[in-house]
Amino acid sequence: MGEFDLIRRYFQRPATAGGAVALGVGDDCALLDLAPGMQLAVSSDMLVEGRHFLSTVDAALLGHKALAVNLSDLAACGARPLAFTLALSLPSVDEAWLAGLARGLFALADAHGCQLMGGDTTRGPLNLCITVFGEVPRGGALLRSGARAGDELWVSGTLGDARLALEVFRGRLSVPEPVFAAARARMEQPTPRVALGLALRGIASSAIDISDGLAGDLGHVLRASGVGATLDADAVAGTLAARRHVALDAATQRGLTLAGGDDYELAFTAPARRAADVESAARAAGVMVTRIGRIEAEPGLRVVDAQGQPVDQRFASFDHFG
Amino acid sequence: MGEFDLIRRYFQRPATAGGAVALGVGDDCALLDLAPGMQLAVSSDMLVEGRHFLSTVDAALLGHKALAVNLSDLAACGARPLAFTLALSLPSVDEAWLAGLARGLFALADAHGCQLMGGDTTRGPLNLCITVFGEVPRGGALLRSGARAGDELWVSGTLGDARLALEVFRGRLSVPEPVFAAARARMEQPTPRVALGLALRGIASSAIDISDGLAGDLGHVLRASGVGATLDADAVAGTLAARRHVALDAATQRGLTLAGGDDYELAFTAPARRAADVESAARAAGVMVTRIGRIEAEPGLRVVDAQGQPVDQRFASFDHFG
Repeated sequence: MGEFDLIRRYFQRPATAGGAVALGVGDDCALLDLAPGMQLAVSSDMLVEGRHFLSTVDAALLGHKALAVNLSDLAACGARPLAFTLALSLPSVDEAWLAGLARGLFALADAHGCQLMGGDTTRGPLNLCITVFGEVPRGGALLRSGARAGDELWVSGTLGDARLALEVFRGRLSVPEPVFAAARARMEQPTPRVALGLALRGIASSAIDISDGLAGDLGHVLRASGVGATLDADAVAGTLAARRHVALDAATQRGLTLAGGDDYELAFTAPARRAADVESAARAAGVMVTRIGRIEAEPGLRVVDAQGQPVDQRFASFDHFG
Repeated sequence: MGEFDLIRRYFQRPATAGGAVALGVGDDCALLDLAPGMQLAVSSDMLVEGRHFLSTVDAALLGHKALAVNLSDLAACGARPLAFTLALSLPSVDEAWLAGLARGLFALADAHGCQLMGGDTTRGPLNLCITVFGEVPRGGALLRSGARAGDELWVSGTLGDARLALEVFRGRLSVPEPVFAAARARMEQPTPRVALGLALRGIASSAIDISDGLAGDLGHVLRASGVGATLDADAVAGTLAARRHVALDAATQRGLTLAGGDDYELAFTAPARRAADVESAARAAGVMVTRIGRIEAEPGLRVVDAQGQPVDQRFASFDHFG
């Protein structure tokens, strides 16, 4: 099957009337309209076999995850998804695999009204590169640089379960099958917190999506904002879903939740007086939020336990190029 | 060197004041402003080692080409370049190579006022994925679908020299060293016809950039427009730069120019009464244009020689997934 047939069969769909995409797949460029007063938010992620996923991964799950990690970046900026491009390098044409990839990708795209507007296909080692486009009111994006001393620090959903699944795969942890299945679903089908990101516009002072582990990603916020933070490691550990079903020692819980990676939850800050607004936004978005610390003027990240005592544990970030 | 250091060292540059990029590299998303009345033109190309370039290619030339092929898509739509994202998969960190890549990339980007606004880096088989953004007045983009019976068919610059260089590399053709050097430069450093695309807005009825060979790419225009064309193969062959310096038989000249690939010239149509405007636009853009045929109502591509006799030669398109 040639490149053009491949595109047509799996990735060309009828245009969506009334959407932002004025011209989709099939010309030299796609065309996108932006509503007055809006800025375009853009993010790009590349997923490589053996680094971000295993060759044995279900294609539909891979399609979901490739788009989910990009939507998570939009969520962290408070941007509403509009469209995306997909560039795909394939070692061979496996039609069942491509059909699965398209199924997983479009299910998530349709759930967010995010239209495939263009891309590229080529032969080569398996690689998916998605660039996603969203809209945000001019000047209204949630940025990493907005955290201020006195703000409270929050995190959405549950942390650490994706990493738990990875450690089970690696044979370093052992948990009952249902616990593993739930953790694996978190790893393979992360839920981008798009609705929460939108609901936090005008409330949160800064936000980031947690892809490389909370401690490391929080460091980006602190540096960009020129502030520090004290973080309650036990409050963070309390978000680990698996701890309700399996006994894990405190150091493991903290390691999984603070330095797990692949969580795709939002870490964000808000003035303390906006706490009730944060909780309303989370309810409206249908996602749990947990207060996990406080922003301070003194630079650096101070990790303490529930009693406020320093936690003597290293939480290295997961670096995709380390 | 970690991912973040890598990004900072080679790809993070001071923000350009007054440009379309409101927020560049370093947050979850980059932010782009679009002027009132403008649409965003988007194109994405993925370049894979062994498929689009050899491992031995000079990194600066690769950086140039990776962006050039994307700018060529903007040119074909008549869009003005604004910004781009770069996702990069690298087998290892070779600092001299990265410095070269950045040099070639930014030299071309700066020449077109096109700012790097974000991206991704990861470890994996060598792969460059660029998504480029341009602006075009709403409804003013040059499309593949606008060719009409009676329009004249034009091509910019010279065709076939990139393919000539490839055939010399493959040992199938032999030419004197200076001819090869010139042809190789066309292959390794294509010139995106951005100025011509802009100048043709309001004049050309359709346009496409020639990446897979004129005959094949022209087929996309004819199908999208619901028309056919008669093409003068000898007028096309006349654009081959090498023919001024080396004797090549007619079939080889036609094959190189009609089915060469990697030309990154524009093929476009315009009403016959606009011929003088086409030539003025080309002069203003500083690029040669050649009239090579005529659009007709009857579907299909009819290739004739200078005497109007049918040319009995197959011109297969270069398919990156064939």
